[in-house]
Amino acid sequence: MNVAQLVSEIKSKKSYLCVGLDTDINKLPEGISKDTEGILQFNKEIINATKDFAVSYKINTAFYEQLGSKGWNIIEKTREMIPSNTLSIADAKRGDIGNTSTMYAKAFFETMDFDALTVAPYMGYDSVEPFLKFNNKITIVLGLTSNEGSADFQTNPIYDPPLYKTVLERISKWGTPENLMFVIGATKAEALVEIRNVVPDHFLLIPGVGAQGGSASEVCKNGKNALGGLLINSSRGIIYASSGRDFAEAARAEAQKLALETQPYTAHL
Amino acid sequence: MNVAQLVSEIKSKKSYLCVGLDTDINKLPEGISKDTEGILQFNKEIINATKDFAVSYKINTAFYEQLGSKGWNIIEKTREMIPSNTLSIADAKRGDIGNTSTMYAKAFFETMDFDALTVAPYMGYDSVEPFLKFNNKITIVLGLTSNEGSADFQTNPIYDPPLYKTVLERISKWGTPENLMFVIGATKAEALVEIRNVVPDHFLLIPGVGAQGGSASEVCKNGKNALGGLLINSSRGIIYASSGRDFAEAARAEAQKLALETQPYTAHL
Repeated sequence: MNVAQLVSEIKSKKSYLCVGLDTDINKLPEGISKDTEGILQFNKEIINATKDFAVSYKINTAFYEQLGSKGWNIIEKTREMIPSNTLSIADAKRGDIGNTSTMYAKAFFETMDFDALTVAPYMGYDSVEPFLKFNNKITIVLGLTSNEGSADFQTNPIYDPPLYKTVLERISKWGTPENLMFVIGATKAEALVEIRNVVPDHFLLIPGVGAQGGSASEVCKNGKNALGGLLINSSRGIIYASSGRDFAEAARAEAQKLALETQPYTAHL
Repeated sequence: MNVAQLVSEIKSKKSYLCVGLDTDINKLPEGISKDTEGILQFNKEIINATKDFAVSYKINTAFYEQLGSKGWNIIEKTREMIPSNTLSIADAKRGDIGNTSTMYAKAFFETMDFDALTVAPYMGYDSVEPFLKFNNKITIVLGLTSNEGSADFQTNPIYDPPLYKTVLERISKWGTPENLMFVIGATKAEALVEIRNVVPDHFLLIPGVGAQGGSASEVCKNGKNALGGLLINSSRGIIYASSGRDFAEAARAEAQKLALETQPYTAHL
């Protein structure tokens, strides 16, 4: 799936929702076995229950890697379940010297055929560019993250302009809105107005709504652009909406709620 | 293995050598089958051939991830081959918000029982601290990397002090020389004198010798401390020293050469 198809999906579903599959084996609801099969069943039911409202699914690799190679096999199988009319994102935050970044790109863009991958910016151009080289794939670079630790370097006041702005300014020139997006935390919604001055055209992947406290409507107000330009991620708030056997219905209800909250901000599309 | 045991190993082998297992299925030497079994056989022969000179082995996860879950299974099996008197490092450059970093730490420190893991600093304290919490494990944070792209943010002259120094200064206070090390590229050997002013006691993992052009003796001269404090990594220069059936002997010779080059700088231990 490419950016044009994503925009069309946002328009038709009237939703910016990305569902985060941060599936923790220890948090599987009642009635689901705490093993490989259980995780796959859970992911399948969550996807089926939310696909009317979600335009994207994001797999957080850490939750699977804790299970070792079995966990990677679950990533592969879950990737295959993601509907082809939604954007599949591997949230893996990779990045290394050139030849190594190329290997990571092959892993996620070729071997597993994800549409998009999150990438860390610290190592600069030759660590990001190998991802951008892959045709019809999207690299999503960390800009301003949702966690408190973003104050240590990204917004540390000893630097003017702040580091995250230098990251956005510089990296936005390395790709186009067709192959490059940025991660901007929902907990920094007030910064979105200024961020849109720096990167007016790129899509922003916005984690931090829900469990982390960010407001989806605030994000839309400050962050939307002419093409929508937003993917608003919720993970725990949706997938663990209920710990009972009704987890899929509860997830669907939460997904719908979030989609409805942001729907007014899709009216211009 | 802990830092005290590492120091004792450096002293007894008179070597700072870390061998990087960046094993690329397409570069396996003649006589080795280009499949899972071939990679495992190659890694085993490389480890056996170099273990008299190496105090550490570093697995670059990207090279295995490109093979998907099969590749992760090779990481697990290669981890088991690493001798217990050497430091096992997963070079994975992970890092995310707190609960996700904890999952990565479990993956590498518990599920696979690596001694050490490389971590990216961009997301700050709560992305690094979950790794530091694991007992008897070592977190190796990126400081100044060996690639050209380090000039984009780490040493960008618009920032004074440069970003990498702020990263070293701040993060060095989050851990101790027993649970925290830093990655400093060998291609920046001239910066090591100043870096030792900022982090005098921590071990530094130094990639970039060999294929990337860094000088091991220059690194030792500028970077060693009272406990040695160095792990000098060579990957391609050792493991691909020969593309023939004599690859193991050639790797052993290269490993010995690098150990001998740095041996004078272990005399004070």
